[in-house]
Amino acid sequence: MTLSYSAPLVRTAVPGPRSKELLDRQQVRESSARTYPRYLPIAIRRAAGSYVEDLDGNVFLDFLAGAGVLSLGHNHPRVVAAVREQLGDLVHGLDFPTPAKDAFTEAQLGMLPGDMGDRFKIHYCGPTGANAVEAALKLAKIATGRTDIVAFSGGFHGSTAGAMAVTGNVGPKAAVGNGLPGVHFFPFSYCRRCPLGLRPETCSTNCATYLRSVLTDANGGVPRPAGVLLELIQGEGGSVVATREFVREVRQLTRELEIPLIVDEVQTGCGRTGSWFAFEQYDIEPDIVIASKALSGIGLPVSVLLYRGDLDRWSPGAHIGTFRGNQLAFASGVAALDYVRSADVLGNVCRRGAQIAQSLGALAARVPGIAEVRGRGLLWGVEFGDTDGLSGSQVAAAVRAECLRRGLIVELGGRDDCVLRLLPPLTVSEAEIAVALDIVHDAVAAAFPQPSHRDNRVPAQVR
Amino acid sequence: MTLSYSAPLVRTAVPGPRSKELLDRQQVRESSARTYPRYLPIAIRRAAGSYVEDLDGNVFLDFLAGAGVLSLGHNHPRVVAAVREQLGDLVHGLDFPTPAKDAFTEAQLGMLPGDMGDRFKIHYCGPTGANAVEAALKLAKIATGRTDIVAFSGGFHGSTAGAMAVTGNVGPKAAVGNGLPGVHFFPFSYCRRCPLGLRPETCSTNCATYLRSVLTDANGGVPRPAGVLLELIQGEGGSVVATREFVREVRQLTRELEIPLIVDEVQTGCGRTGSWFAFEQYDIEPDIVIASKALSGIGLPVSVLLYRGDLDRWSPGAHIGTFRGNQLAFASGVAALDYVRSADVLGNVCRRGAQIAQSLGALAARVPGIAEVRGRGLLWGVEFGDTDGLSGSQVAAAVRAECLRRGLIVELGGRDDCVLRLLPPLTVSEAEIAVALDIVHDAVAAAFPQPSHRDNRVPAQVR
Amino acid sequence: MTLSYSAPLVRTAVPGPRSKELLDRQQVRESSARTYPRYLPIAIRRAAGSYVEDLDGNVFLDFLAGAGVLSLGHNHPRVVAAVREQLGDLVHGLDFPTPAKDAFTEAQLGMLPGDMGDRFKIHYCGPTGANAVEAALKLAKIATGRTDIVAFSGGFHGSTAGAMAVTGNVGPKAAVGNGLPGVHFFPFSYCRRCPLGLRPETCSTNCATYLRSVLTDANGGVPRPAGVLLELIQGEGGSVVATREFVREVRQLTRELEIPLIVDEVQTGCGRTGSWFAFEQYDIEPDIVIASKALSGIGLPVSVLLYRGDLDRWSPGAHIGTFRGNQLAFASGVAALDYVRSADVLGNVCRRGAQIAQSLGALAARVPGIAEVRGRGLLWGVEFGDTDGLSGSQVAAAVRAECLRRGLIVELGGRDDCVLRLLPPLTVSEAEIAVALDIVHDAVAAAFPQPSHRDNRVPAQVR
Amino acid sequence: MTLSYSAPLVRTAVPGPRSKELLDRQQVRESSARTYPRYLPIAIRRAAGSYVEDLDGNVFLDFLAGAGVLSLGHNHPRVVAAVREQLGDLVHGLDFPTPAKDAFTEAQLGMLPGDMGDRFKIHYCGPTGANAVEAALKLAKIATGRTDIVAFSGGFHGSTAGAMAVTGNVGPKAAVGNGLPGVHFFPFSYCRRCPLGLRPETCSTNCATYLRSVLTDANGGVPRPAGVLLELIQGEGGSVVATREFVREVRQLTRELEIPLIVDEVQTGCGRTGSWFAFEQYDIEPDIVIASKALSGIGLPVSVLLYRGDLDRWSPGAHIGTFRGNQLAFASGVAALDYVRSADVLGNVCRRGAQIAQSLGALAARVPGIAEVRGRGLLWGVEFGDTDGLSGSQVAAAVRAECLRRGLIVELGGRDDCVLRLLPPLTVSEAEIAVALDIVHDAVAAAFPQPSHRDNRVPAQVR
Repeated sequence: MTLSYSAPLVRTAVPGPRSKELLDRQQVRESSARTYPRYLPIAIRRAAGSYVEDLDGNVFLDFLAGAGVLSLGHNHPRVVAAVREQLGDLVHGLDFPTPAKDAFTEAQLGMLPGDMGDRFKIHYCGPTGANAVEAALKLAKIATGRTDIVAFSGGFHGSTAGAMAVTGNVGPKAAVGNGLPGVHFFPFSYCRRCPLGLRPETCSTNCATYLRSVLTDANGGVPRPAGVLLELIQGEGGSVVATREFVREVRQLTRELEIPLIVDEVQTGCGRTGSWFAFEQYDIEPDIVIASKALSGIGLPVSVLLYRGDLDRWSPGAHIGTFRGNQLAFASGVAALDYVRSADVLGNVCRRGAQIAQSLGALAARVPGIAEVRGRGLLWGVEFGDTDGLSGSQVAAAVRAECLRRGLIVELGGRDDCVLRLLPPLTVSEAEIAVALDIVHDAVAAAFPQPSHRDNRVPAQVR
Repeated sequence: MTLSYSAPLVRTAVPGPRSKELLDRQQVRESSARTYPRYLPIAIRRAAGSYVEDLDGNVFLDFLAGAGVLSLGHNHPRVVAAVREQLGDLVHGLDFPTPAKDAFTEAQLGMLPGDMGDRFKIHYCGPTGANAVEAALKLAKIATGRTDIVAFSGGFHGSTAGAMAVTGNVGPKAAVGNGLPGVHFFPFSYCRRCPLGLRPETCSTNCATYLRSVLTDANGGVPRPAGVLLELIQGEGGSVVATREFVREVRQLTRELEIPLIVDEVQTGCGRTGSWFAFEQYDIEPDIVIASKALSGIGLPVSVLLYRGDLDRWSPGAHIGTFRGNQLAFASGVAALDYVRSADVLGNVCRRGAQIAQSLGALAARVPGIAEVRGRGLLWGVEFGDTDGLSGSQVAAAVRAECLRRGLIVELGGRDDCVLRLLPPLTVSEAEIAVALDIVHDAVAAAFPQPSHRDNRVPAQVR
Repeated sequence: MTLSYSAPLVRTAVPGPRSKELLDRQQVRESSARTYPRYLPIAIRRAAGSYVEDLDGNVFLDFLAGAGVLSLGHNHPRVVAAVREQLGDLVHGLDFPTPAKDAFTEAQLGMLPGDMGDRFKIHYCGPTGANAVEAALKLAKIATGRTDIVAFSGGFHGSTAGAMAVTGNVGPKAAVGNGLPGVHFFPFSYCRRCPLGLRPETCSTNCATYLRSVLTDANGGVPRPAGVLLELIQGEGGSVVATREFVREVRQLTRELEIPLIVDEVQTGCGRTGSWFAFEQYDIEPDIVIASKALSGIGLPVSVLLYRGDLDRWSPGAHIGTFRGNQLAFASGVAALDYVRSADVLGNVCRRGAQIAQSLGALAARVPGIAEVRGRGLLWGVEFGDTDGLSGSQVAAAVRAECLRRGLIVELGGRDDCVLRLLPPLTVSEAEIAVALDIVHDAVAAAFPQPSHRDNRVPAQVR
Repeated sequence: MTLSYSAPLVRTAVPGPRSKELLDRQQVRESSARTYPRYLPIAIRRAAGSYVEDLDGNVFLDFLAGAGVLSLGHNHPRVVAAVREQLGDLVHGLDFPTPAKDAFTEAQLGMLPGDMGDRFKIHYCGPTGANAVEAALKLAKIATGRTDIVAFSGGFHGSTAGAMAVTGNVGPKAAVGNGLPGVHFFPFSYCRRCPLGLRPETCSTNCATYLRSVLTDANGGVPRPAGVLLELIQGEGGSVVATREFVREVRQLTRELEIPLIVDEVQTGCGRTGSWFAFEQYDIEPDIVIASKALSGIGLPVSVLLYRGDLDRWSPGAHIGTFRGNQLAFASGVAALDYVRSADVLGNVCRRGAQIAQSLGALAARVPGIAEVRGRGLLWGVEFGDTDGLSGSQVAAAVRAECLRRGLIVELGGRDDCVLRLLPPLTVSEAEIAVALDIVHDAVAAAFPQPSHRDNRVPAQVR
């Protein structure tokens, strides 16, 4: 594989002829529900590390990284080698014990901090994050004998009926009638747009207070739920980092009321935020942890629940699925974790995160149209506000397009897609970050219609 | 890999020490929702073709085949080679077009009979059958603007909230409150236990008539549904083969009422029944086809919807998921389909199916406790009735255990698990079938407490 | 009050000027959800016994009788006297005990056959039938701890969310999203249009068999319900009389499975079918009986549940309402029951019912367009089939109009309103019945376009 | 009728022998869901004006007044006379126009302020408040084509499935599975216990801001609702008066988003708060008004919707019911309204309300255990806080009991029944109020264990 940093990045706005042929064929034959290629019209021939190459030989820096899946970048050689080896032994194992699965179980439980690994159990889910969310809701309902779920505005948990019901995005839900009942949404600590309309100086985690008020009110309308489902950083919601006070108060409340706290670490887990699990940074212990995406390091489908052993009250067959014994993903995941440890990948995440924070902070200080820069580790977002007659979403879309024509793949998120999201591989190098951020700076400059770099505004905060 | 037919099959009822250790570790650390190893206590070291080998070197004939996933058996070398090659190029591609995906799309649409491939589109789902079921229900609801779904007693479609709602098994549903509303169950043509209590001589597809009566009755209680979801052979339901008349009348009715007919071919598809899709044998054209399990041939997770192009009315992002671009599965699927064609695997399915039918027919004729033998292609079921104070389920469990101690892995299904199910790889050889059926004959003899081989009963029918 | 049989009945098709004025004002100011005056454009000035008089002095025979509410006709003097007396003491009593309520409780429990009155309890509901249906569903759910309800196609139970959910009419439900989940519809023994498509000679209560099949099938899709809700004669559904075998098998099955059988006697109760409760004629004992409509005899709002004492497991306040202590209705109900007993009203019901059966039977024998004549006591229906290019519904509407212009108020029911329904007061005289049936005969003759009284068809059955 | 103010009030804590007999019979035969007689063990023989007399001749001042139904007290002679007259003409009229109904329609639409009466329509509901709530939800859903409803914590709307779903009380809902989906609860301006945990100095109607945040957030989790359902004063919720700012912001928001605002005036309507409708005091115009309880003045069951004419998009029969044509209630309602106008009852409400406010204010200033005194017109609540080791609920229950033994009937409400509620007839005299409030003062003194009249606390506010 010859893809490397030394390859020149694409400098063109339009796909070449071979890419275009494949994109056209896709449009004719594939579902209109497809998303990425609509805004990032790339047909991928091959990829390696932080780079992808299209069918016409153009090379892109990939700061989407499989929506955060490719923690070790594309086709990491150490991990690929482990997959090759496993291919000779066993590919598919249902839920039978196998050496690969045993090692994976050991590795995952072993990453839980303190003695959690001794007290927690693992459930192998159908290999998607949504499936694990469904399993978590089911486990909480069965363990508590209750029927309702508390979720948060801005959350994203997946596309299946149960996962969609707990997702904040109302458009897709409204399009489909008869959704899953019993989900109650509460405010998330999205302080830049405080849902309660409070300013920092009058706030004392009132979003969490409201949750407490309702759940302790016999006339509040919301029954004691089977679980509270929380992302610590809302990824799709716009890289919104929950405040420490909010998370700790939610944990305190759910403990008092004996409500399992379910933490969705599908995007934040596996080192993305600088610790293996994001919850470690909040000094809390969840009751159920949902993990998927980067578990295998190179994008093989796998997902699991990790949960307090005493919640393990479901029956045999309560949540099954044919592909729960993906041996390639197990072998891959064990190799990936070995690499993360041996190469101090988490250290790299923290250093590169600081590098990004510094650069985006400088950008935000210069560009009034940037409303906020937020992130942890290698999960960052740049929220654009409305400027010069353009909505934040329009600006963000323009920045994405300008990045692409400069060779950088990035995606949007947040309300109305007004947040530029950076999700590079955790193995990204200092030089790659530098190149990418130069492109972002240039793209922002190009996206704003004119000299809108006025200095007469309060610069955005970096959270 | 040295596993082959010549390897002596295990002749022991208990796991060896190394297997036992892994089984014990699993019991301690894994979810109590696990299933297979409870009744088939095997820890798998490696596998090839129709065989698996446990950690103690015992070899088993695998007539479970990953619950029908392993159409070409374990680790088919031609397919594994294709996966190895793909590993160097690209593993994970979100929903971007890639050469591997393009070839897979071409291959799958190309398997649709007649000109269907020109009129149908493909949607890539999160890589589980359940996810594809969820996507199918969503597509039907959005395309019709309706909210309800008709499903059938005995059906199995998965464990996520939407898939569980359309599944007949009531135990898991009752354990979880607040299920997905708007699902209406109707009788399936399970003639051995006719849900309407009719005998063959008085039946004229009244189960389908009842569906028509309700859906055309303004006071019937069931609104015009968004879709009718049907398995042509209910696999988990007990290898129950729908009658041709029933299926064709359901198709006729849904066409008249403009209700999309969704056929779940997760288990019956990819050649399992002797044609690539089971619906071909019924001479019908469904509106939405759900495929998964054996798509990759060797068990890599992938699932798709194939559907009438004019139903493609969902919005970008209507059903998303991170692992929908599993390039290894695409490469694997294309290679598997090449092999199916070049090696006349469908011909083998038909010949081996006839071999099974003949052998099980003889067994049923001899053993009054066998209520019915049913199947198509290489999807077979032996339903045990209540005999000599034992329930059919008890007998079936005993037969499974007796098979296992003779080296044959088989599973149960149907109501209260009273049906022994045979799901060998589609590449199974005549000799392997012969060995397996000898074991089944012996196991049945051993499972019945006494000389219950009385001839004073009407022998079971083979359907 | 001067209204009497001797008054000449109206002979005009159009409302007079005073009636028209009120009808017009209603159209402008009242809800478009109003129903009766659309097809029976009458503005009522006063009424007595079986007669109503409009604002222009036209007199009509009232065979609608407040949709079966006015069991003793309009303003029965004995009952009105009791109301006048109660007005001086107490009108509204919440759920406090009062002499009027105590007497009413005594009277209602006393009408239960055998020793049921000793074992049953009474719950006072908000004074509508729908409210009592809601209370019954709630009681059954709380008593069993289950969540689902079985109802029957063709049933009608009311317009509130719970009552509408168990009602067969799909139009109103489809207009309102997010209905009450967990209701499962099953076939009713509507043999004229057997929902299973069976002919009498092959039927052996297979509609009940199907219910048994599903409820005893672990994979049937329908969990053990909290209750089975049944009308013995579906009134709004088209005066469809359940067969004795069907009802008894449903009772047998629900007893075996410990499912409360809820009988909705809102229309069939209080003597309408010739016995006080219709269930007496089926020799069954329900677990919960819903009563309302004719409880007060003259139309004052009241409704109750009568139910097995051991089901009384709801909590204080589980089903409340301000108007549950309608003292006027209690006094009225006691007086009405006294009159029913002293004047042998049930005997009159039986005799007048026989008179109707004889006359309608003769009509049906003569008119091929009549598909079936059905009824019990004074609840009758004439179902019209499709004839001479007219649908049964069109014919029925024409017959209603022809009746009205001859001075007889009758309404329609059944599928697409193809059934003419006769619901006279239970105190109707032989002469009034004779007049009314002469009108019906004439109206039928007038409604059919031409000499369609062909004799080349099998005459309709009288059930 | 001889009951009058001169009758000595009861001075005993226990029911006499005749009352006890009836209470005992009730306990044996009636539903365990009964409520009032559990805490107010009274068997009522007769009543008049503000008084009730039990079966043993004890006389009580009735400040419960049929839960607010008896606006003109018991058996008001002017209204009773109108009922007597109507009894001779017509009692029950389905939804046919009649003179009584026409006059009632005229009267009700005529009470709407400004030109609302010209633009609004009336729908006659089944005669309970809950039925009108159900109808209002249905109307809003049909008119908007949407499926969800916003309701408020602390709200009470009734016991049928739809009305219970929008009611805040979680206990009864949790007892019944499978409730109506699609209801979302939001914070009410219950400032004494601000659900957001704000203090007055930092609040700027943030409860309404939160509603705005969620309903305008594409990722908020709550779809644009079909209606927002609001009580202006939460009666059962504890006489909680919505702030003017909150109500006006909710009205502003719902207008912007084209969401019908449904105001439940079942308890607050018909003059209870000093204006005919409570919404007049907030200077808003709702889109749908729910009225019931006091419409007839003396407790005859009736309920209606008043709504913007352009919302009148439901179909014939969309919400039906047998008892919607209660002619006695119509005649009664017209007579009651005449009396209200001619006797300046609304003026009395305002004067007596001021009298209560003054007296309760003085009480609260003296008794630290009183957390807040709240009300409008003749709808008042005294909320007790936790004091001296007793919960507010325990104190409130003790006060109720002490009131009863002194001859005053009062009930509790609010969270855990910690609020003493005063709901006298609107015709109550100055002297009756004085007697009642003397009793309340004495009862409070008696209920507090001892010298708890400490002055070292901030006195409660009167809102």
